[in-house]
Amino acid sequence: MPGIGKKNLEIMFLHDKPARIITKMKGQKKYASVLAKEVDCTYSHCVRILQDMKKLGLVEFEKKGRIKHVILTKSGEEIAHSMEGIYLSFDKI
Amino acid sequence: MPGIGKKNLEIMFLHDKPARIITKMKGQKKYASVLAKEVDCTYSHCVRILQDMKKLGLVEFEKKGRIKHVILTKSGEEIAHSMEGIYLSFDKI
Repeated sequence: MPGIGKKNLEIMFLHDKPARIITKMKGQKKYASVLAKEVDCTYSHCVRILQDMKKLGLVEFEKKGRIKHVILTKSGEEIAHSMEGIYLSFDKI
Repeated sequence: MPGIGKKNLEIMFLHDKPARIITKMKGQKKYASVLAKEVDCTYSHCVRILQDMKKLGLVEFEKKGRIKHVILTKSGEEIAHSMEGIYLSFDKI
């Protein structure tokens, strides 16, 4: 049951929402609403996590008119890369 | 304040005790009591985490007389390696 194993590993080691959000943002601009759907959390929870990430210097918000994108900083990309490594190691088990 | 940044990153993304325990075990046999001290948690909490890790196939217990070591399996080593990568990426920030 690899799927169940992966879920249990995620539960054991990670805060799943922030870990998934940063992994999903790797190398891409995203809307918060799209991210929220991708990681299966509410829009407001997703925005709260993104604001915390901004405080830690991991993301920037880009505003163009009414459109607001979120994008990883260099530090954010580093963590996203390592986090992807964690998920890949979960997949192997 | 790199130390504070690292702590906040750990709080944001990881369950710190399991994440630290598996990282500390990389490539080494350990006693649960030593691990508990190294990651600053109680012996009973540490043993509970190790038992959960055993269920997921990440560690084995080795008994020699009254001495009980804990050691990572191949899968455990894979995760320990990736987790070390996460901590290294935290250090860079």
